[in-house]
Amino acid sequence: MGLDTLLDKCGLDPQRELVAGISGGPDSLCLLEILRTAGYRIIVAHFNHKLRPEADQESAEVASLSNSLGLPFLGGTGDVRTYAAEQHLSIEEAARLLRYRFLFEAARIHSAQAVAVGHTADDQVETVLMHFLRGAGLAGLKGMEPRLILPQFDQHIPLVRPLLSLWRSETEAFCATHNLKPHYDPSNNETIYLRNRLRHNLMPGLENYNPRFKEALLRTAQSLQGDFSLVQEALDASWHKVVLETGEKWIGFDRDQLSRTSLAMRRGLVRRAALMLRPTGREIDFSASEHAAVFMGMPGSHQMDFANGLFFFIEGSRLYLAAYEADLPSSQWPQIEESKLQVNGSCELSSGWVLSVEYAAALIDENSLESDNWTVRLDADLMEAAELVIRPPHPGDRFQPLGMVTGSQKLSDFFINNKLPQRARAGWPLVCSGEQIAWIPGFLIAHPFRITGSTRRLIQLSINKPLNK
Amino acid sequence: MGLDTLLDKCGLDPQRELVAGISGGPDSLCLLEILRTAGYRIIVAHFNHKLRPEADQESAEVASLSNSLGLPFLGGTGDVRTYAAEQHLSIEEAARLLRYRFLFEAARIHSAQAVAVGHTADDQVETVLMHFLRGAGLAGLKGMEPRLILPQFDQHIPLVRPLLSLWRSETEAFCATHNLKPHYDPSNNETIYLRNRLRHNLMPGLENYNPRFKEALLRTAQSLQGDFSLVQEALDASWHKVVLETGEKWIGFDRDQLSRTSLAMRRGLVRRAALMLRPTGREIDFSASEHAAVFMGMPGSHQMDFANGLFFFIEGSRLYLAAYEADLPSSQWPQIEESKLQVNGSCELSSGWVLSVEYAAALIDENSLESDNWTVRLDADLMEAAELVIRPPHPGDRFQPLGMVTGSQKLSDFFINNKLPQRARAGWPLVCSGEQIAWIPGFLIAHPFRITGSTRRLIQLSINKPLNK
Repeated sequence: MGLDTLLDKCGLDPQRELVAGISGGPDSLCLLEILRTAGYRIIVAHFNHKLRPEADQESAEVASLSNSLGLPFLGGTGDVRTYAAEQHLSIEEAARLLRYRFLFEAARIHSAQAVAVGHTADDQVETVLMHFLRGAGLAGLKGMEPRLILPQFDQHIPLVRPLLSLWRSETEAFCATHNLKPHYDPSNNETIYLRNRLRHNLMPGLENYNPRFKEALLRTAQSLQGDFSLVQEALDASWHKVVLETGEKWIGFDRDQLSRTSLAMRRGLVRRAALMLRPTGREIDFSASEHAAVFMGMPGSHQMDFANGLFFFIEGSRLYLAAYEADLPSSQWPQIEESKLQVNGSCELSSGWVLSVEYAAALIDENSLESDNWTVRLDADLMEAAELVIRPPHPGDRFQPLGMVTGSQKLSDFFINNKLPQRARAGWPLVCSGEQIAWIPGFLIAHPFRITGSTRRLIQLSINKPLNK
Repeated sequence: MGLDTLLDKCGLDPQRELVAGISGGPDSLCLLEILRTAGYRIIVAHFNHKLRPEADQESAEVASLSNSLGLPFLGGTGDVRTYAAEQHLSIEEAARLLRYRFLFEAARIHSAQAVAVGHTADDQVETVLMHFLRGAGLAGLKGMEPRLILPQFDQHIPLVRPLLSLWRSETEAFCATHNLKPHYDPSNNETIYLRNRLRHNLMPGLENYNPRFKEALLRTAQSLQGDFSLVQEALDASWHKVVLETGEKWIGFDRDQLSRTSLAMRRGLVRRAALMLRPTGREIDFSASEHAAVFMGMPGSHQMDFANGLFFFIEGSRLYLAAYEADLPSSQWPQIEESKLQVNGSCELSSGWVLSVEYAAALIDENSLESDNWTVRLDADLMEAAELVIRPPHPGDRFQPLGMVTGSQKLSDFFINNKLPQRARAGWPLVCSGEQIAWIPGFLIAHPFRITGSTRRLIQLSINKPLNK
């Protein structure tokens, strides 16, 4: 990827301002000069880490350079050592956090289009090597991208890295030929930090095996970025098909659609789902995602513990991945919180479900009417012997299902036998004539209210969920 | 991935025989014992490389072990050193080639379902590390797969690797506890081969950075295998949509469909296409595939050189990737090799194209008839003043296009002005009345044969390509 291609990939608009993070080292001075000659509108932003005695002097030099170039300068500083101690971070991590917060804050204040930083091809290959050593997957091995959103710093302003294809030695040569006087951070030469150990010890060792190892690694990163995009694209398309509904701490999948996806796709989907529900959770490893992907594609009704405090469960045609503490979704069921009196017309239940009541004066060809467990017809005269009530279950409720000529059974037993999920039971709507249950929507009518030869008027009850409600 | 999952992924059928490649070392003896206790029907196959003085003795031991276990034994041998010298291969490569040929040949002769080999988790991480050092992409970094077809050895019988999740130390421990007496190849301890240098020098060095580096690398391989499957799946689906036709050395894409795919997808498509056309060509790197992917999605009509002796060109709604030496496709055009006489009915041209001729006695509502450049109506009486001939262009052909009242133009100029691709011109069918061109299919009729007020009979000519021809 040449410098031009890379600048294209940063997607910068020459008309809009951008914040450039300039430390004063060779990489950032090269970045500044390249952006400046390409005609971008730059705001120079410099963060003084105050970690070295020369820091104040270096800050002054960056400010003076900006001034001489006629560019706006923003300086920031923070107590890196104290912050690191308080937050139990390494000095490097604390410095990075405070610096990026400053840069993105500057970008927001000045409505800048992006924050540009001077990461080079050397930084890229060191990053990939670090990820390789820790056993990263594709997302890590692909390295840094030329343009991306870091949601922890800003949801909309991207970080861009125009120098990812330029080697550090090239930025130094560039500074020399453009008469730029960078300062050099002496800590770069210490091998106390992992990155510096990689740079000075491991990298030369690996170059014994392949003298062009760094170029090779840069190529690997670029190639894996392409694969990563493809994987994300495929997952996006599949996600759109298989996910029916998401809540704050749960995701509801369509089991039928899931069964049509490949094992590899389900592995990807479950990793994405876990990351959505537990953004800071540990990475889902291959065995865990494989195990989950097999479960997700299986027929049968089960529940399964997953990683990071998440679990799977199946309800009818849906499979859920949810956090243990989730408020689980119930919008796929009609639910009712308190009793309602109902005479005619329609009555709203939870989540867009509606109960409709209609009367018919005469019994006309009953068999031709459409009927299922959600639309039933009862004897209207018998129903009207008491008030029509729609209510949630009460403790001790009993029910005489159609076909049970005498006696009754416990409603709680009925729910268990019919595999109604536990959490749907307390709010399940019951249509009653006075105290007596006449219909359990979705299941069965009560024997006493059935249509017989002596029925003269019908009451038709239906519950459904109109679309887009 | 545990041993059980891995065995699942090998997809072996306990009812069918399989060939196990057994060297007699700890890995292969462990493989033999694991397959045997899992109830598979094993044929022991051993290749004697004759590279070490102990080789014959070791072969005899494997044969004797098979015999004592009641398993069929097949021995093979070959002159590795001579073959390596002849083919300019390393000893390792030559040994591998001859060994695999023997194993797959054995599998074919015995109608075995697969060839099983004893690659371990150590082999896996060494493989991934070698690919990492050379700058491989996803296909290399994902390492060895538990089951795959190696087309150079057999198109249908897979190679399976049931031990990929077991460490070498585990296979040695397994042999000890199962009272198996493996022999050890002393060349494993020499650091002359790259793989051995990695094992004994580099790997311990990397473990200084991550003491669990080998486990990490195994995890990386497993995770990348999942991503690799997803990428292949996405490419398969897209390939199916964008590729219209393939020849031996060319691939024809639908430009409209290409323009709807993402840049990342086009990068993947072009790499796959290049691999199909040049299976042994060098890997297409990121810049080349990026450049090609941009070109593939562009409007406008161009030609572009690509890598490995391939080039792109655009013809109408198609984009081709072709080898310079390709016999380019012309099936999207009607073509004719020699003159044909035609009176009535239909006449076959090249690649399933057909010319149809029909007559109509009276001129009925001419405007209501469907007409385009591939179906025209002419004055039949004028056409019949001479024989109806369909023929390819002749040098010096001239043509009086509809609307040119006097004079004529060169056919060659007409073709150029109308942007007919060069290679379509020599075989382009012309419908003539005697010597005179009456219609250039796909373009225009000739002025003299147009329908006028005095036309009494019509001749309708059409050229089309019925589907599935």
